[in-house]
Parts: sequence; C-alpha cells; structure tokens
Amino acid sequence: MSTALVILAAGKGTRMNSDLPKVLHPIAQAPMLEHAMAAGRALDPDRTVVVAGHEAEKVRAAVAEIDETATVVLQDEQLGTGHAVLQARAALEGFAGDVVVLYGDTPFVSEETLERMIEARSRADLVILGFEAADPARYGRLVMQGESLEKIVEYKDASGAERAISFCNSGLMACDAEVMFRLLERVGNDNAAGEYYLTDLVELARTDGLRVTAVSCAEAETLGINSRSDLATADAVFQARARAALLDLGVTLMAPDTVYLAFDTYIGRDAVIEPNVVFGPGVTVESGALIRAFSHLEGCHVSRGAKVGPYARLRPGTELAEDTHVGNFVEIKNAEIAEGAKVNHLSYIGDATVGKGTNIGAGTITCNYDGVMKHRTEIGARAFIGSNTCLVAPVRVGNEAMTATGAVITRNVDDGDLAIARVEQTNKPGRARKLMDMLRAKKARMSKG
Amino acid sequence: MSTALVILAAGKGTRMNSDLPKVLHPIAQAPMLEHAMAAGRALDPDRTVVVAGHEAEKVRAAVAEIDETATVVLQDEQLGTGHAVLQARAALEGFAGDVVVLYGDTPFVSEETLERMIEARSRADLVILGFEAADPARYGRLVMQGESLEKIVEYKDASGAERAISFCNSGLMACDAEVMFRLLERVGNDNAAGEYYLTDLVELARTDGLRVTAVSCAEAETLGINSRSDLATADAVFQARARAALLDLGVTLMAPDTVYLAFDTYIGRDAVIEPNVVFGPGVTVESGALIRAFSHLEGCHVSRGAKVGPYARLRPGTELAEDTHVGNFVEIKNAEIAEGAKVNHLSYIGDATVGKGTNIGAGTITCNYDGVMKHRTEIGARAFIGSNTCLVAPVRVGNEAMTATGAVITRNVDDGDLAIARVEQTNKPGRARKLMDMLRAKKARMSKG
Amino acid sequence: MSTALVILAAGKGTRMNSDLPKVLHPIAQAPMLEHAMAAGRALDPDRTVVVAGHEAEKVRAAVAEIDETATVVLQDEQLGTGHAVLQARAALEGFAGDVVVLYGDTPFVSEETLERMIEARSRADLVILGFEAADPARYGRLVMQGESLEKIVEYKDASGAERAISFCNSGLMACDAEVMFRLLERVGNDNAAGEYYLTDLVELARTDGLRVTAVSCAEAETLGINSRSDLATADAVFQARARAALLDLGVTLMAPDTVYLAFDTYIGRDAVIEPNVVFGPGVTVESGALIRAFSHLEGCHVSRGAKVGPYARLRPGTELAEDTHVGNFVEIKNAEIAEGAKVNHLSYIGDATVGKGTNIGAGTITCNYDGVMKHRTEIGARAFIGSNTCLVAPVRVGNEAMTATGAVITRNVDDGDLAIARVEQTNKPGRARKLMDMLRAKKARMSKG
Repeated sequence: MSTALVILAAGKGTRMNSDLPKVLHPIAQAPMLEHAMAAGRALDPDRTVVVAGHEAEKVRAAVAEIDETATVVLQDEQLGTGHAVLQARAALEGFAGDVVVLYGDTPFVSEETLERMIEARSRADLVILGFEAADPARYGRLVMQGESLEKIVEYKDASGAERAISFCNSGLMACDAEVMFRLLERVGNDNAAGEYYLTDLVELARTDGLRVTAVSCAEAETLGINSRSDLATADAVFQARARAALLDLGVTLMAPDTVYLAFDTYIGRDAVIEPNVVFGPGVTVESGALIRAFSHLEGCHVSRGAKVGPYARLRPGTELAEDTHVGNFVEIKNAEIAEGAKVNHLSYIGDATVGKGTNIGAGTITCNYDGVMKHRTEIGARAFIGSNTCLVAPVRVGNEAMTATGAVITRNVDDGDLAIARVEQTNKPGRARKLMDMLRAKKARMSKG
Repeated sequence: MSTALVILAAGKGTRMNSDLPKVLHPIAQAPMLEHAMAAGRALDPDRTVVVAGHEAEKVRAAVAEIDETATVVLQDEQLGTGHAVLQARAALEGFAGDVVVLYGDTPFVSEETLERMIEARSRADLVILGFEAADPARYGRLVMQGESLEKIVEYKDASGAERAISFCNSGLMACDAEVMFRLLERVGNDNAAGEYYLTDLVELARTDGLRVTAVSCAEAETLGINSRSDLATADAVFQARARAALLDLGVTLMAPDTVYLAFDTYIGRDAVIEPNVVFGPGVTVESGALIRAFSHLEGCHVSRGAKVGPYARLRPGTELAEDTHVGNFVEIKNAEIAEGAKVNHLSYIGDATVGKGTNIGAGTITCNYDGVMKHRTEIGARAFIGSNTCLVAPVRVGNEAMTATGAVITRNVDDGDLAIARVEQTNKPGRARKLMDMLRAKKARMSKG
Repeated sequence: MSTALVILAAGKGTRMNSDLPKVLHPIAQAPMLEHAMAAGRALDPDRTVVVAGHEAEKVRAAVAEIDETATVVLQDEQLGTGHAVLQARAALEGFAGDVVVLYGDTPFVSEETLERMIEARSRADLVILGFEAADPARYGRLVMQGESLEKIVEYKDASGAERAISFCNSGLMACDAEVMFRLLERVGNDNAAGEYYLTDLVELARTDGLRVTAVSCAEAETLGINSRSDLATADAVFQARARAALLDLGVTLMAPDTVYLAFDTYIGRDAVIEPNVVFGPGVTVESGALIRAFSHLEGCHVSRGAKVGPYARLRPGTELAEDTHVGNFVEIKNAEIAEGAKVNHLSYIGDATVGKGTNIGAGTITCNYDGVMKHRTEIGARAFIGSNTCLVAPVRVGNEAMTATGAVITRNVDDGDLAIARVEQTNKPGRARKLMDMLRAKKARMSKG
C-alpha cells in the first residue's frame, strides 16, 4: 500500500513570540519540522506534502534543504486544520493509498506508532492517534466503543462522564486519500472560530457508515510545542533520550546532563566524553576517542584514539585521524590532521592539511584569508612547526621540515629544510630599569598635573 | 502616605561559615541585601535604613554602592530583632508614615506583596506578613480570628491545635512609625535567649486595643538564607525564574539550565543563547543576536545581528555594534567594535576602537599596558590587521590600512597605507633533518650518561 | 582484632559494553575499585586482597597504583562469589581475625557502616550487611528473628510473606577468617547457574550453630554499578555529596550543579567557585581563592587570594602563589607562578618559574619542546614580558628585566636588561589600497574564468 504524508506547518505560533515560523525553531539543532518529517520518512512515503502558511517562503526554503522531494503547498488563510489538509489535494493528484497527517510542531511521534496507524487501516477507514493523558485537561476526548471510535468530544462540549475519559486526541490521523478528500469537502465552519476542523472527519465518516478507530501511543510522542518553554522542554526530552541511547551503546558520559548533543551526533563504543561538551550537527566520534571538557564540535570526524580538548573548537570540515591530539584553545576548520599529529596549544589551523606525526607549536596560525580570498596551507609528515609560526597561505612546508620560532612563512619550505625569519636578539644593559623608572615618573607627573 | 524601610542586616550568619557578612553573599551576582533593598524600592520609600552589626563597615560600603540615599545604622550588640529595629529610630527622626521591616537575608519578597501589606494598613495598625507553609516545622504560627491576627505562637509554646496551623510568620511587618517605636520601648527580654523580639509587637498592640492583621504571600517569597546550601538554592530559584521570564519574552535558550544569568541581564526577543553561557552583571543583548556556547559576558552591550563566540570573553566596556563577529578564544575589554567588524580568532583587544567592516586577523594583540599605564589603540574602518599583529598602544591604524602578518606596530599607519615589520624568510637546505638528528643523538647520550 | 579485606573485582560487567573491566570505570575520575578500596582502608586492614578475573592484568596494574600493599589474586573461571572469595585463601595464609568482603562495583559503603559490621562481630560469628530497600524488587530478603538472621531468601524462592520484607541483602559480610574459609569449603554449586554462592554461608553457619546477624545501612551505600547509566548515576551521587560537603565547609559554589569535582578535590573556606568549572585529580584550592567560570584544573595548587580564569587551564605541576592572576585562555603546566605575578591573556607557560610580581604579556609562549626534549624557562621577579614574546627554553630572564613586544628570546637576559628582537616598521604609502584592489580584481577574474 502506498503512503503519502501531509505535514501541517502553516501556523504562526503566536506564543513563540518570534519572527521565525514556529516549525523552524530547532530542537537539538534541527528545525522541529525536520524531526516531524524524519518521523514520517520511516513510512517510506511516496509523496510528502508540507502545508506552509505563515512565513511560507522561509518554510519552503527549509523544506528544500531537509528533503528536496517534498512538495510545499500554501495555505493562504489560516482557516483550520481541515482547510489546511485540503490545500494538499492538488499535490496528491493521482495518488492512491493512505494519507497520514502529521504536524510540524509535534516532532516526537515514533516510527513504531506510525506503523501501527498504517496497520490499523486494515481494520478501519479512518485511524486517529490517541494517547492516555496524565492530565487530560482541555484535550479532546476519544469516546471508544470497543475498537470503534464513536466520536471526538471537545472539552467544552463534554459531559461529566466524557470529561472523565483520559484517552485524548493527538490530531494525527491516517485515512485513504480518496475518502479523506471526499469527506473534507463536507467539513463546515459553523463554529465559534469559523474554522474547518480536521477532527470533523470522524463524525462524517461515521455518518457514511465507515469504520473509525483509534490507536494509542505514549503521551510523550504527542508533545506539541507552542512556546519557547515547550521548545526547551522538547529539547531536554530529546537530550535525555539521546544521552541514554549513547550510554546503552557503551559510551562513557562522565556527566551526561552537561553534554549537549545534536540530532545526528554519532559516538562509538568506549569513547569518553568529559563534562561540558557541545556537539553541533554532523559529528562522528569513533570508538575509544576522548573528548575532553569544554570542547565544541561541529561537522567533523574524530578517529579512534584521538584526544580532543579541553577547549578544542572543531569546525566543519575537520578530519582528525587516529591518535591525533588537538588541545587547549585550538581551533581547526576545514583541515585534515593526519595520524599522530599534534596541535596542542593556542593555534588556528584553517584550510589546511597536516601530515603524519607532525608537531604544530603553540601559537601557530594559518593565515588563510588575505582580505578577499581563502587559501590553503599544506604541511608534510614529521614536520616541526615552531611556536608562534605564521603560515601565509598558499604555502607548503615539506616532510621533516622545520620552521623556527616566530617565523612568518611566505615561501614554500622543502622537505628536510629549516625556514628562519627572525631578528637577532639584542640585550640593552640596564635599559629595562631605566624605562620603568621613566614610565613611573611620567605617571607621577600626570597624576599631579 | 509616606513609607520608610528598615532592613535588618546585622546578623553574622554563623552557618554560612564565612568571613563575609551573610547579607553580602551574592545571588545572581548581586549581594542578597541588594535583592532585598530592590524589593523595598518598589514602595518608593522616603527613607531607607539598613541596620548593620556584624562586619558593619563592609555592609556600609556595600550599601553605599547599592543606594547612596540609604542610611546605615549600627546595632552594636545582637540583642534581637526588636532591638535591631530600635536602632533605626534616630535615622527616622521626623518621619511620619509607615515603616516596613525587611530582612537582608530574605531577598525574594515581591513588590506586589509589599504593596498589599501597605494596602492592609488601611484596615489595621500593624500588618504581619505570613505564608502558608508546606511544612510548618518550627515556624511561629499566626493565630487568626477572621481578619484579625490574635497572636503569634512560637512552636515550642504552641498547643496541638495551634501546631496544626500552617499559616506562619515571615517576620516582615508594616506599622505606623510612631506606633511601632512607642510599642518597641515596651518590648522586654525576659526569655531564654535574653533577646528583644520584634514579634512581641503583636501582643503589645492588641493589649493597647490596636488592630492587627496578617496578609499572605507565597512561601517562596519568604525564603530565608542561613547556609551556603540555602544560598545555592536561592540562586537556583532566581535562575529558574529569570530563565522562564526570558523564554516568555521570546528569547531562545537552547538548554536553559546551562545558562547562568545575572540579576540584571537583559536579552531581546529572538536572540539565541546556546548552551553553557555565563552572564556577569551589566549585560544587554539586543534582539536577534547570537551568543554561542562557552561565552562569558560582563558589562557589555551586544547589538542586533552580532555573533559572539563560541569561547568569547567580553569584559566590561565592550560595545559590539550590529553584525559584528567576535569569535573563538577572543577577549575584548573596554573596546568599541563597529558595525560588521570581525575578530574571529585568538585575539586580545583591550582599550581600543575598531572601525566599520575591519577584519582583525588571528592572534592579534593590543599591547595596551606598558607596565605602568594603559593606552588606547584606534583602528579605522575597512582596515585589515594581519595575523599575529601586535599593536603597541598608543597607536592608530587608519581607514583601509593594512598591517602585515606578524608585524609589531609602534607608529601610526595612515589611511590606505601598509605597515610591514618583518624579516625575510631564509630556507636552510637539509638543516631541519640535521638539527633533529643532533637533538636525538644528544638525548641518547643524556639517557646513557 | 585484625582485619583483612577481600574485594571482589573479577566480573566482566557485560552490560557496561566496554573493553575496560567494569571495576576500572571511573567515578569522579578514580576507578570505582579505588572508591571501594578507600572505603575498606578506613578499617586499617592488615591485608587487602583483590580478586581479579576478567582482564586481570589491567586490574592488577590499577591496584598496584592505588595501594601497592594490596595483593591481587586470580579467579580464572567466574564460578560465583563463594568461589571468588576462596581464591583469596592462600593470600590470607597465616592471617587470623575478621575478613570483610567488599565489591569493586559497590563503591559507596561508608566507613561508619564497615565499623558497625566489625563491631557486630562481637555479637555474631557472621555479619551480613543489609539495607531497607525502597523498592525491594528482586533483591534477596533478609529474614530476621530479633537480632538473629534466620536466612537469606532469593526472590524467586520467597513466599508472599517473605516478599513483603524490605530488608535486603547487599552481599557485603564480615566473618572470622578461619570460620569463613572452613564454611566456604562446604558451599556447593547445585543450582541453576552452577555457581558457588557466598550467601550460602548463612545457612551453613546456622547449621553449625553459629550466630548470624545483619546490620543495616542506607540503601545509597549499597548502590551497585552494572551499566554506563548506573555509572553516570553513581557519579552524580558522588558529585551531589561532594558539593554539599564543600558548601558545609564554607565554600561558595555559585551554581553547584555545574561544578564537576574529582574524588580528591580540596577547596578551602570562603573560596568562590563560579559556574562551569571542572576539577581533575589532585587539586587543592586555598581559602579565599577565586576560580572563575570555564576553568579546568588538574594536579595543581592554588593559593589564597589567587584569581583563576575564566578559561584558565591549569595542568599538573602548576603552583599558583598568593595573589597571582591567571586569566583568559591561559594554559599553565609544571610551573611555579610566584606571589602577585600575572598571566592574563592567551599564553602558554610550561616547565617554567615566574618570579614575584612579574607581568607576562598577552600571547607569551614558553617554547619548552625542541621536537625531542623539554627544557625550562626561568623568569625573575618584577620582570615585564612583552606581548607575544617567545621564550625559547632553556632560557632565563632576570629580575626587573624586560622583553620587547614580539621578541623571540633565545639568550639569557640579565637583571634589569631589556631584550629586543624586532624589525623596524616600514609604512608603504597607499600600498594597502592597491593590494586590496589587486586582490579584488584577481578574484573577479577567477570567478569569470
């Protein structure tokens, strides 16, 4: 059976108090919409339609980055969820099969739950996703009779007995495409808000004698995000799960609550992550690597046996080979550091390659930017870059070559050669004392003056 | 009606185990006394009297910084709260109106609660602030009869029925000044501790046929601080409230629990604060700015569109204009960075101005201290400061000027000029290999020797 | 009475999912085995025997570092706890007195509890340590009759009444050595797992008419570690206790939950620790020192009045004397910084001494490594090291000496002398503008080409 996703992402999210559309606010560094779309992708859908509205162009751009096969359709006016799904009709022209309706602000629904919804379609024409609410509050109640969903009652219309029901409506549903759009045409807006409600499908389906059922999932899967506070909670939920998963895989997190993970962080078994480490998107850390405290990693790969930090800043394009050391107050960007090489102190290595076993002295800087363009630095194997060396790119330092302390390297250094660029030291006897006396006298005059 | 504050701040706070007087221990980087005084300031008091005792001179100095209009009076001996308030009498000479008694170690009472106390004075001569205690434990109980406070019963004197009361005494009160001091004269010290208790005013007032009532506030407002553990709890309470307030204002805190705020941190809507950021006092961050992980900000202003960090250290006097970038392992102090300027790597910029669109290379240092005095560095607009440049202040680099990599700049550079201070690079063929061989041989000899 | 410890440390810890033996996984930076051994050491044992099995050589090496007087014996096959203790017999040859059985994966038993176990030996031949379980789940139940332990019932064999018992078996025990080994010979392995269970001693002892009792401890003391998640929990428990202990001692932790402590961190009264500080092993911080945010300390000593950080990285062998300042993005290793000296910005000081009152300029680097060996740098008192100075060790800078900005110092500088190594600055009129125009034109050509 074919499946199509319709993902509602048109709302403004007024309570977010933001210029950014709600569904683009990130959880673990990916837009919440991306989490919702990733959940749906587990169904291997034939088509994915995102319904945008508020700041639709921003949503369209984001969707293009997340999944270029997805279609974005526009809901010009926010006339309710039923109206929103109808906007997907043209994009689903010619599609036959199940439509699953997801929400861009409900990012945590699980693959297993979606599969159970699809599976329930064999027993019912319309499948609603419900959850047992710890505190049902003002959620719509799902009134069941055996397997059959009788109706969804809004809190304000519910009788005392119905309010006692704790099985509540998540809003997610699965339905045959043809049936869904046929029923949607009959949804009216004769209500206080003047909106077309998707939930009205339940009553319409039952009127037509169709079978309607509900499946249940954990309440946590239906967590909806309406405020920055909800967003922070959702991020914390994600972090807790991701940390627990890493621990299960055999990763040591010395203080799990202080490690911030991205949606796609990969860390191998027996890697050790010290306290206070932040992972941006696109990081893989191999087994047995050590990431020390106060390190920040984005878009990089750290190999087995590498030691990173404390205070290492790995930016996108960093490749650390096995047994490399990247240490204290060191920033690496778009650079490959080969096996056993060390960059231990106060350095910036950008747009570069560093060969095997090479030692980069403290304070080394690759001058990769000339004010207009970026250039590359190549350093060979077993080289020794003296402290405070500036490597003015484009430039190459050969294998087993050295640069003297404090050198500004503007020309290539061949294999085995030593490059020097230094003034001889001159000591001026007694001059330091005289200078200090002079400065102190000057200060004294100024404070009198 | 006029109001005066009497703030009790004389206690040693033995359980703090500290040389610093208890009321000067900070919550969110301001002394707890400052929080209490700020609460009282909401009443727009005519006079503020702080009663100091233990380490009174330190308290006096702190009060002078917090509110120079406040008077500090001395309680030489710690003879109880009644005695402490009496010490404020001379300082309130000539004052007519309400006296509100606050405590330097009870920092969280709200403006709204204090206003309700004042408002209740229209119905009673003496107003006590009470709270519903979740666990009344050994607090004094407030025995009410309708609106009237019958008496305050200490736990040890309370009957079973009285112990069942959960409405407890916070110690805060409001009373007509003349009445309060008249009654205070009659307070005795015929008790186990030999102290004069402020709470005795209730019984004396009732004896005189005066009206006594109590108003109630949330227990959290009456949180008193007696140990470092209490202090840490109070700080955590403050942080939780301040973070929630920021989220409500539309600030994104990716991991709110990892962001440490100061009492006066201001952050605008749609600013994004990554994990692990610490705010010292005096920081304002405008809407839409991005503060990345592991940044530390004190006494600075960050404009719209600026990107700060990771690992940015902004010290007092830093002004970042719109769209500036201050990046990795960069420290800025007492410096204005103009629109669009960038200081991206491993730099120290102190006592300086940096013009619009200027790029500061990695490893740049403003040498602002000559061992005796500090001097300023001025850098113009659209300038390019080469990597590892030292700017020996006082010095000026003009608009569209450049400094070459590794230059030590001691003289001004005019607009459009290029300053160079560099030795030509010399490559010594084969010398690196020889040097290494020599060093290895030497090491071998030493380990034999 | 003499005491011997037998510490079981042979298990693989399959659920840890690790190549490292379970008991070597660290809590607060010491192997959990070390915590267990430290607990036992409180009894001043005559002998300590660790029973290793899985990865025994790694365990043996770790034990040698923790306590060189301890004996490691091998349990070749993992045939149960009874079998494990029997392996210690030869190592206890000639020992008379109490044997206390501890577990390498149960690190939190307290000194006071162990002393109560020993004390209970005066009333019983065999003493079992039990705990009141909040959720007894599948623990073995201790069936008491008055002071007498009747039997230990495994959950699966327990009656309904026995399952209602919440007093559970921790596995720890104390017994006369001769009695213990005599009974152990009779323990059989006629059970589902085919293992020899230490708990069978209870039944055997009672059969022989010996007195058996149990003492009780807090459940937290018996926390056993079987997974990375348990390990993280144990670390968090340790941190919470250690932080509370510091607060009690009069240390200010502004945000205790963000301070990560090692097992042996010592911090004096009235020291202030800002948020986000990580302590490695071997750190002592004296009274009144200030450790600012984002600092990382290992194997170092910080004296009274010193200010450290933010972003200070103190590595092993760092000695900071009184009133020193070590600041932003500064790494110190194996160096003594004398009273009042300052290293405020972006510096690396390794293998060095810095004299009293000396000021180290921003960007200073001690070049302590020549590619083969490490060398020392000595800097005298009241010296002034200019910004961006490289000190090529071995080298000495005298008292009241200065180095000019950007100097590479390769030869000693005598007291009061000024060392210069700098090229004169040349300004090239208009050259910066020309250079930029040229680069922009080049870029334009390239993007066309």
